[in-house]
Amino acid sequence: MQGRFISFEGIDGSGKSTQARLLAEALRGRGQTVVLTREPGGSPGAEEIRRLVLEGDPDRWSAETELLLFTAARRDHLEKTIRPALARGETVITDRFADSTRMYQGISRGDLAAAVDQLHRLMIGVEPDLTLLIDIDPEVGLSRAVARQGAEQRFEDMGLDLQRRMRAGFLALAAAHPGRFRVIDGARDPQAVAADVLAAVTGH
Amino acid sequence: MQGRFISFEGIDGSGKSTQARLLAEALRGRGQTVVLTREPGGSPGAEEIRRLVLEGDPDRWSAETELLLFTAARRDHLEKTIRPALARGETVITDRFADSTRMYQGISRGDLAAAVDQLHRLMIGVEPDLTLLIDIDPEVGLSRAVARQGAEQRFEDMGLDLQRRMRAGFLALAAAHPGRFRVIDGARDPQAVAADVLAAVTGH
Repeated sequence: MQGRFISFEGIDGSGKSTQARLLAEALRGRGQTVVLTREPGGSPGAEEIRRLVLEGDPDRWSAETELLLFTAARRDHLEKTIRPALARGETVITDRFADSTRMYQGISRGDLAAAVDQLHRLMIGVEPDLTLLIDIDPEVGLSRAVARQGAEQRFEDMGLDLQRRMRAGFLALAAAHPGRFRVIDGARDPQAVAADVLAAVTGH
Repeated sequence: MQGRFISFEGIDGSGKSTQARLLAEALRGRGQTVVLTREPGGSPGAEEIRRLVLEGDPDRWSAETELLLFTAARRDHLEKTIRPALARGETVITDRFADSTRMYQGISRGDLAAAVDQLHRLMIGVEPDLTLLIDIDPEVGLSRAVARQGAEQRFEDMGLDLQRRMRAGFLALAAAHPGRFRVIDGARDPQAVAADVLAAVTGH
């Protein structure tokens, strides 16, 4: 039996990584075998590509080259980590997947939207069975993120306005794919959010 | 005025790298500014991707991931080296370009041919103005290649039969694109080959 493929999406400070971990723990507590992974990265090769993209001068790759590198990383992640686990009947939970690419390119290079979609269909072709969007007001996310090392500078660089556009981009994706997305209010106690996540996953 | 974009293709031992260098020297002797480059690589970023693909276990990347990585390298090569030189009105001579990818994928993973073409149209979109295929019998190429360090082992690994299929793959591409390709007999003295190459480039 093919396993279930679940992704978490959300802006920085939304708590999606915490929620991915809490869901993995909850499902393991119910006896499921769970692979918890993340993007960019998630397999040894994809982690190498991640380093190639994220290290060094942030402007050294164009949006197009970066899109190809992230797609190569996603392909490796899919082949080496996600598909084998699903084939073993395990549950795969990933912290970010293709929706992050769609959202980022959508707000920074909207002219690439068609290329992003074609590249995905051509070289990836897989969507999660369920995508949990942990939605949060960027000002709340910011106050959380500054508590984490290094996050403050990144937020100052990117700006609250950009975070608002990222939130809107994710909500637009959720609205466009209502069958796959569940939007969870992330502006609450992590355990309350986790309860909603688990209900969305188990259906009760 | 936009410069001219010339590529060399051919199997190992065909002498294409020597011919690319000899053509660059001949055109410089005629007062042209020439950028001599190569693939995979040809820009600092593309050379990093080349190392990522070619170093380590040869089986660590699937054909699909390798195709995405080489396309990322080609995009960087195009943006950082080829297009700026052409925009300055310079002549660009590259030792391999997209035809090498088409040929390799065609003989090893023919099922990827449509993906190779779509990926090229989507993310590269450029063909050379002129492609010089230095054609040679693989047995002649082999006797040349074994004279070069390390080449003998590679040939033994790949096999003469594979070299024959590569030659046929290149000739098929040349036949499919007669307006862009010139097939040059490479089984002669390098200076005689160079004279034919220069005649093909200058038109007399």
